[in-house]
Amino acid sequence: MFDNFLQVVAHCDKYPYGTANDGSVPIVLNGRVIGNVLPNVRNPLIDYNDNCQKPPFRITHQIEFQPWVDSFDKRTQVVKELMDTWRADGMQSLKGWRNELYPVYGVSGEPDFVMERAATPLFGISTFGVHVNGYTGDKLWVARRSKSKQTWPGLLDNIVAGGISYQYSTQETVVKECDEEASIPSSIAGRAKNAGIVSYYTVTEFGLQPETQYVFDLPIPEDFTPTPKDGEVDEFYLMDMEEVKKTILNNEWKPNCALVTIDFMVRHGILTADNEPDFIDIVSRLHRRLEFPNPRKV
Amino acid sequence: MFDNFLQVVAHCDKYPYGTANDGSVPIVLNGRVIGNVLPNVRNPLIDYNDNCQKPPFRITHQIEFQPWVDSFDKRTQVVKELMDTWRADGMQSLKGWRNELYPVYGVSGEPDFVMERAATPLFGISTFGVHVNGYTGDKLWVARRSKSKQTWPGLLDNIVAGGISYQYSTQETVVKECDEEASIPSSIAGRAKNAGIVSYYTVTEFGLQPETQYVFDLPIPEDFTPTPKDGEVDEFYLMDMEEVKKTILNNEWKPNCALVTIDFMVRHGILTADNEPDFIDIVSRLHRRLEFPNPRKV
Repeated sequence: MFDNFLQVVAHCDKYPYGTANDGSVPIVLNGRVIGNVLPNVRNPLIDYNDNCQKPPFRITHQIEFQPWVDSFDKRTQVVKELMDTWRADGMQSLKGWRNELYPVYGVSGEPDFVMERAATPLFGISTFGVHVNGYTGDKLWVARRSKSKQTWPGLLDNIVAGGISYQYSTQETVVKECDEEASIPSSIAGRAKNAGIVSYYTVTEFGLQPETQYVFDLPIPEDFTPTPKDGEVDEFYLMDMEEVKKTILNNEWKPNCALVTIDFMVRHGILTADNEPDFIDIVSRLHRRLEFPNPRKV
Repeated sequence: MFDNFLQVVAHCDKYPYGTANDGSVPIVLNGRVIGNVLPNVRNPLIDYNDNCQKPPFRITHQIEFQPWVDSFDKRTQVVKELMDTWRADGMQSLKGWRNELYPVYGVSGEPDFVMERAATPLFGISTFGVHVNGYTGDKLWVARRSKSKQTWPGLLDNIVAGGISYQYSTQETVVKECDEEASIPSSIAGRAKNAGIVSYYTVTEFGLQPETQYVFDLPIPEDFTPTPKDGEVDEFYLMDMEEVKKTILNNEWKPNCALVTIDFMVRHGILTADNEPDFIDIVSRLHRRLEFPNPRKV
């Protein structure tokens, strides 16, 4: 399906560099762009706002909160009411409602409000997660996503991945998700080492998704086999790297997980400057600079 | 000297993102920008060109070769004559003449010409090198640059680094430089593993320097001590990571080598999302996307 790994990266990191020409308008808070809204969201947003007794948004060439929406709680509340309304109206992109709140970071590096995870692509909000590369010797543990998952059912995935709940550290999130998704005890999960980030800006049927994944490497002991627990995963395989490469090029992976695995292969000397023609373009695109605020507190 | 590692990165990756407003004009070849020229170079270039019997350059809002300069050899020759003239005129930035030819890559990923290494900043040409992180256990080998080096004398440096000569692979370059700079035999140097790139766009007294360093990790056996050989290095130290961090923040390192070491600390879980507030900004800026062509052949 793909001729090379640069195509795999571009298939996920697909939002244009430079001018997008997609008619999107920025959402601005305290002088910083915190998201972008496509025309198919901006128009319903204008309708919604016009019909509010006390409109919460100021919509011009950009979108802002009205001055009265001046706190974490008020921003959270007006966005919740908007999304609840759109969900009740049956908006397609909100069918995958998660009941999970994601922080929206502002200039301070602290969250300026929180919003439903499934709604973040409607506002093009930058989101953050952890992805774990589990390996045994020179083989990689690969998960097969459950066929009943809302998103990307049946595709290959990293051994463990998850969003970072409000006020969890990345390391705590890894340990929690290792247990929930793969029955990996904390005695093993605690050895996971943060090895950087993978960042990209993708576009899906749900909207705009600038994303940053904290990547962790986790050595899995030879005598341990991860097993599904919470139903997110159907099966785990221990793949040699040739099979990993083949399945990635064959488009069998969830797109962003393929990027995390390509980053793993770069950091571990499997893809190198001497064997991968697009090495520089691949490595720089795996670390796209996103202009949105991000978490700055530790 | 620096409050944090993001400042260290920004001290090297200092060319503006977005519009530069420095009066620079692009050098264009086959429709791609291959470099940039600052006003203090453009003006002497116009003078030089006007005084040529057969001017080699076409200088407008951009700089191109004249149509008659239509081959690798001709481009190489006209740039050589220009730089020889400027060197004979005593141009300050060419005092550090190296007698070393660097490839200038074009749209094909093959070199479109070669030019003197010391002259590349005058044209803002993208250059490529290898940097090696030598480590023993959890300590890092650090070089002290010779006090007689033309550039950055006496500062701290990676154990081994060097430019990639025309038609050498990165791995061959590592083995050659390991021998020349640190007396590391190929039996050890051959274990160096490519672990990605560090890319940045710096500005120095010499001009504009968009650079990409292929980074390698090299485990050094406990019973081996690197020793200087070609006079580039005065001493090697085995530093614990606290001392590495301290000396970086204290501005004791050659700027780009500090970036390679920060990347090492990120990949090895020493700087993490949980202990480094600027983690995302640091990691993305260590992999700046440069718009210039780069080597695409393997």
